[in-house]
Amino acid sequence: MSDIRVTIWNEFRHEKSHEEVRKVYPEGIHEALAQALRQHDDLSVRTAWLDQPENGLTAEVLSDTDVLLWWGHMAHQEVADEVVDRVHQAVLNGMGLIPLHSAHYSKIFRRLMGTSCSLNWREADDKERLWVIAPSHPLAAGLPPYFELPAEEMYGEFFDIPAPDELVLVSWFTGGEVFRSGCCYNRGHGRIFYFRPGHETYPTYYDANVLRILTNAIHWCAPTPEAAARKFGNTPPVEDVK
Amino acid sequence: MSDIRVTIWNEFRHEKSHEEVRKVYPEGIHEALAQALRQHDDLSVRTAWLDQPENGLTAEVLSDTDVLLWWGHMAHQEVADEVVDRVHQAVLNGMGLIPLHSAHYSKIFRRLMGTSCSLNWREADDKERLWVIAPSHPLAAGLPPYFELPAEEMYGEFFDIPAPDELVLVSWFTGGEVFRSGCCYNRGHGRIFYFRPGHETYPTYYDANVLRILTNAIHWCAPTPEAAARKFGNTPPVEDVK
Amino acid sequence: MSDIRVTIWNEFRHEKSHEEVRKVYPEGIHEALAQALRQHDDLSVRTAWLDQPENGLTAEVLSDTDVLLWWGHMAHQEVADEVVDRVHQAVLNGMGLIPLHSAHYSKIFRRLMGTSCSLNWREADDKERLWVIAPSHPLAAGLPPYFELPAEEMYGEFFDIPAPDELVLVSWFTGGEVFRSGCCYNRGHGRIFYFRPGHETYPTYYDANVLRILTNAIHWCAPTPEAAARKFGNTPPVEDVK
Amino acid sequence: MSDIRVTIWNEFRHEKSHEEVRKVYPEGIHEALAQALRQHDDLSVRTAWLDQPENGLTAEVLSDTDVLLWWGHMAHQEVADEVVDRVHQAVLNGMGLIPLHSAHYSKIFRRLMGTSCSLNWREADDKERLWVIAPSHPLAAGLPPYFELPAEEMYGEFFDIPAPDELVLVSWFTGGEVFRSGCCYNRGHGRIFYFRPGHETYPTYYDANVLRILTNAIHWCAPTPEAAARKFGNTPPVEDVK
Repeated sequence: MSDIRVTIWNEFRHEKSHEEVRKVYPEGIHEALAQALRQHDDLSVRTAWLDQPENGLTAEVLSDTDVLLWWGHMAHQEVADEVVDRVHQAVLNGMGLIPLHSAHYSKIFRRLMGTSCSLNWREADDKERLWVIAPSHPLAAGLPPYFELPAEEMYGEFFDIPAPDELVLVSWFTGGEVFRSGCCYNRGHGRIFYFRPGHETYPTYYDANVLRILTNAIHWCAPTPEAAARKFGNTPPVEDVK
Repeated sequence: MSDIRVTIWNEFRHEKSHEEVRKVYPEGIHEALAQALRQHDDLSVRTAWLDQPENGLTAEVLSDTDVLLWWGHMAHQEVADEVVDRVHQAVLNGMGLIPLHSAHYSKIFRRLMGTSCSLNWREADDKERLWVIAPSHPLAAGLPPYFELPAEEMYGEFFDIPAPDELVLVSWFTGGEVFRSGCCYNRGHGRIFYFRPGHETYPTYYDANVLRILTNAIHWCAPTPEAAARKFGNTPPVEDVK
Repeated sequence: MSDIRVTIWNEFRHEKSHEEVRKVYPEGIHEALAQALRQHDDLSVRTAWLDQPENGLTAEVLSDTDVLLWWGHMAHQEVADEVVDRVHQAVLNGMGLIPLHSAHYSKIFRRLMGTSCSLNWREADDKERLWVIAPSHPLAAGLPPYFELPAEEMYGEFFDIPAPDELVLVSWFTGGEVFRSGCCYNRGHGRIFYFRPGHETYPTYYDANVLRILTNAIHWCAPTPEAAARKFGNTPPVEDVK
Repeated sequence: MSDIRVTIWNEFRHEKSHEEVRKVYPEGIHEALAQALRQHDDLSVRTAWLDQPENGLTAEVLSDTDVLLWWGHMAHQEVADEVVDRVHQAVLNGMGLIPLHSAHYSKIFRRLMGTSCSLNWREADDKERLWVIAPSHPLAAGLPPYFELPAEEMYGEFFDIPAPDELVLVSWFTGGEVFRSGCCYNRGHGRIFYFRPGHETYPTYYDANVLRILTNAIHWCAPTPEAAARKFGNTPPVEDVK
């Protein structure tokens, strides 16, 4: 089996404007993730970010991507609609997508879900415990029954998403909330895994369990050979889907 | 329990331009459905159509609607985006939606599904058999194990939709196809039931089993008291959802 | 619509042997529930318990029951296998079943689920918060976004059940656990709603939100007319199902 | 990654008693499947059958099995209950199970489903067309949009199973029926894939698409490293599960 081609997309703004964030992710969230994922021989990893031409996601980049990770927060509206169209079409054609944390409010995730994707939240250093509720799922491979993040932003229900095709993780927060934190979706020929943790001020993306999940997710989201073949034009155009 | 307020929306173009369609539905598909549904004491039925101001779906009409039926085909693109925004928001706030047949390609259904909603099709007087695969579901109340429509347009898989939250009906067609014909979705505080049959040249909407399903669907989609309450502004705005 | 015929089955042992339980439920859990449910004009309520002949669930009682509530804990093994067979068949034929709390380990629930139904638990006066994650569902009608039980036994994941057809409630516990507390299943022509709260030493079944859910559940589980008709013998025998 | 250890279990009675079957599968269905699966370097394949001691499924065999295929038809009742208990426990502990065709009525499949698993059927050389309705699923890797079996026994809805966690294939039959033919389930730490085709008088298990699906299914059902670890005793005992 050939390498899985991974593109890590990051908004890459907080890291430039907030000293607090830069301390945690000096080269950006994307680079921290890339360094970890490059440890895996079967992954071929590149990065892209908002302020590149075409938001870093040209047709060429997407046609060369099997799985796209997406972190965004303060500048969702600056992602060009034509880039969103292109990513949307790529997912329906088979590309995997892994929206991270505040990407719940990204244009592309909302487009794919069809709902508001709103939720309750609080910045207060809650402790988060993530429970595996689907132990037979490949997403849960290598995980203990639960694991903890000592401090994180709280996201709470009601999370306005379609019921996931498979729900793998449910979070508990100190303050009294629960959240569907690991959500699998199939859309078109593509797969989506929404993963909750990862506020920019916490070292979440250095956590071994988090990295294990993301690695599992990349494998789960990677298109099968046929879905990959479908990426090169043999599905009907859906460019007018809004 | 008070009446369920039903609005039947129809594109209402085929009936004007095609003699063949006018013969089957002389006053329009919406009026044929309205006459049948008005037989039910607990339903309060009105109609609306594309060529009315604001496509017949003003904020006032929607705030007075519990369940919206939607038939469209040749003029999906003529529905104003701001009307689609408004209907989308109404569904997320609790209004039921029943897209019929070719409404699979309507802007509002695609928006809510997040996929292309494409399918295979053939106009060839196929016989259609609809099988109940969820007999405990309220949608199936009063139905036999299967029923037939002697002639219909064929819709076949792969139907590019999210896996339904509940799949109630699967169709068989003479020509060798199957189709997920009765699909339940929950989105936001609202419920959606996609129902396949109803090509404009066939008398499908006079069929007793079809009318039974649509009546069941209206009851299933009608918002609970709380969802109804949510319609009047107490949810966060999601107007930037595209 | 005629009355829904409800039978509340209780093991009715703790109340006799434990003073602490008798203080909370002097006439038994079944009687506390019956008194509350009898406030509803459209419910016709009876009770049954383990130490009656045939465990109180004769063929006659079952053929006269639309929805069966089930509370059991210390004496699951004393329920006769032939009674379990009979209840199983009744559910597959359309009877609703609402297993409560420790009934997760009842023979009938395990039979219907096919899994071990094991879970983690702790008796420690945890506070429980139940979050509604499916606000459009009839089970959630009349409920706030979440509600609390000031003290309850903790049940935690991993709960070894099939993924629910619809997941309506997720619990948060003081001690750091989450739990799928309101789980909808369709099995055969019948419907099942598992509801977590209700340890025998706490006054959970007097709580207004709990009673609201159980009332909602009875309506959700009640068979449609056709499913009701199926109860009288017109389905194939499945008596050898184990 | 080490080999997946596959055990193919066959009732192996038709092949001995029916000349018609022996012509198609001279060494038995299990041997036909084994020869095809042994072409895959990453599969380690053995066989077992009903008339061996302990029905060929000793504790040792099961502890050495990652995925168990199961074909049975005329002698379901002859499988010992203690063997069914053992296989049940193995699945809950992580072993994959692939019930084939008439194994819908096997003790182990009914035990795991909790329903009657009854269906409609007809032996009449129907043509069967299997449609892929989940193209992003690994089960569908390498498959065309649909494929045909020129002659098969008909199985039709209503199939009394729990709604599959994921529905991958739906069959069309000449005579007017549809059927959920490829059904994914997660139970405990194990995975189950029910696959419909394979009546003993047809050469179905030599078909390239069928073999592709079964190979895909073995990979999909194979336990993750952790689930595999769970097989050796570190889960709570559930021996009283019936």
